[in-house]
Amino acid sequence: MMDMYIGIDLGGTNIAAGIVDENGKIVAKDSTPTLSSRSYQEIVKDMADLSFKLIEKAEISISDIKAAGIGTPGSVDAKNGVVYYANNLNFKNTPLREELQKYINVPVAVENDANAAAFGEYKATGVNSSCFIAVTLGTGVGGGIVINGEIFRGFNGAAGEVGHTTLITDGILCSCGKKGCWEAYASVTALIRQTKVAIEKHPESLMVEIVKKNNNEVSGRTAFDAAKRGDGAAQQVVDQYVRYVADGITDMINIFQPEILVISGGISREGEYLVKPVREYVKKNGYNKGALPMTKIQAATLLNDAGIVGAAYAAELLVK
Amino acid sequence: MMDMYIGIDLGGTNIAAGIVDENGKIVAKDSTPTLSSRSYQEIVKDMADLSFKLIEKAEISISDIKAAGIGTPGSVDAKNGVVYYANNLNFKNTPLREELQKYINVPVAVENDANAAAFGEYKATGVNSSCFIAVTLGTGVGGGIVINGEIFRGFNGAAGEVGHTTLITDGILCSCGKKGCWEAYASVTALIRQTKVAIEKHPESLMVEIVKKNNNEVSGRTAFDAAKRGDGAAQQVVDQYVRYVADGITDMINIFQPEILVISGGISREGEYLVKPVREYVKKNGYNKGALPMTKIQAATLLNDAGIVGAAYAAELLVK
Repeated sequence: MMDMYIGIDLGGTNIAAGIVDENGKIVAKDSTPTLSSRSYQEIVKDMADLSFKLIEKAEISISDIKAAGIGTPGSVDAKNGVVYYANNLNFKNTPLREELQKYINVPVAVENDANAAAFGEYKATGVNSSCFIAVTLGTGVGGGIVINGEIFRGFNGAAGEVGHTTLITDGILCSCGKKGCWEAYASVTALIRQTKVAIEKHPESLMVEIVKKNNNEVSGRTAFDAAKRGDGAAQQVVDQYVRYVADGITDMINIFQPEILVISGGISREGEYLVKPVREYVKKNGYNKGALPMTKIQAATLLNDAGIVGAAYAAELLVK
Repeated sequence: MMDMYIGIDLGGTNIAAGIVDENGKIVAKDSTPTLSSRSYQEIVKDMADLSFKLIEKAEISISDIKAAGIGTPGSVDAKNGVVYYANNLNFKNTPLREELQKYINVPVAVENDANAAAFGEYKATGVNSSCFIAVTLGTGVGGGIVINGEIFRGFNGAAGEVGHTTLITDGILCSCGKKGCWEAYASVTALIRQTKVAIEKHPESLMVEIVKKNNNEVSGRTAFDAAKRGDGAAQQVVDQYVRYVADGITDMINIFQPEILVISGGISREGEYLVKPVREYVKKNGYNKGALPMTKIQAATLLNDAGIVGAAYAAELLVK
């Protein structure tokens, strides 16, 4: 029997959880609504109920579970299993570990969700690399830095805010209050804004038709889909967006020279269509132009499951 | 008797060396011209001669020396004590350790000069901090990242090129081939360029007079000196320059959250005049606005001696 772990990915909308084996394979998974305005006690009770359901589904017993992990939004005191603060969940000094252990008496890891997702991708593709970085392109731009198998947290636990490095000093105002952050250009939120500007300028573009078919909603896929069908205006949006992404990734590589850098978030489903030009940009503009071994840049493989696998991996580290 | 180390700071112009005690205090130091077009064997022989001279000057004996360290330009294989490549010294796969050991039979550390300088400042002010960063503003912008007491090198040894992160995407062409690097705005080379533009625009500025008195040479001090004497055009140059410096430092802090970040290079002699506005900028624009403990930002203390002390510290680590 392999060692089994519970991985819980707590989001603002859903609680996703899985039973994950020691190889990082999800053997059972399910989700339940977070209903985020509730108390943390109610939310954690649902995590426990979901876990027991999954134990049954996986046809294992609670004694097979070595540890559990929770990936949560917000800033986390990983050592004590407490969430300092998460604004979209009304968490403040919330003892998630202690609360979950009322139901499941195993070691419980509590990890920031972006870190957990990075850990998941690390478990899937990066184990044994001395430095591994996951950059997540989503509503914002997040990152997880894994050095010698551990999340790099800085002295106060708040390191890794790679989305809040400057791409254009004094540029577009970012949600963090600083101007010109990478996130303000390379997040999917930014891509949607860039797509809307292009649609405004090019009413003849295929993008207009695609948006109509999508309930009049511009998404992160709009420009990519139109560009693949030969639309010039869309191609311009994609090219510029990819350049923004690639420039920030070049920064990360110049600073860290990680063995592997993974691009995650829904947009990484574009695969080589996104990753290939990023790789070419880094090869041309990176400080290391091939004189030394170069960072492998690749699309994430786990995507939505990264949070579950990463939380389980954080759990595994607790008992290893 | 304290343990003693030899620290050698190999520059393009001079070889500076010192006898450094276990507390990081230089007990004797001197220098000799590098004459950089010579063979590495001749250069290393002068390092050895200088070391023996210093041992005599310090009134110790060779048996008191526990180890020696060399800080050298170029990319370094620290494990094997070899310089892969240094263009200004004609070094290519140059076995500095082996060569120095022909004269002085102690363990020899070979370290990149920027890393050695960072190590020196770490020894002086940062020991025991889990993460420490030195940013050097000079001809370029360099950096040394010390994590848990070790230089962070990345998987290929080339990490830490913090000067080659973007400040303005597609901006001024940098010496590295990428456009818009921090170095292209925040190096002293860039400050001199910015000062020249301001002088061109403001012939009435006090800067003109200062330059005349300085053999018609614009230096990194020109604008700072004039600004301190109330010159408005110079103040504008200083304000903009400090903003460039501060924005990149904010990036480093958002990524690393180091306990201490030290600004080094000759310009750090400006002390609080430079550091205070940087600190204020970071407090206002950093991702951590004081909810968590904040990075201490300070001017370097060792400056020109950092290379010697850092090389000696690298030596100390070899035998500790």
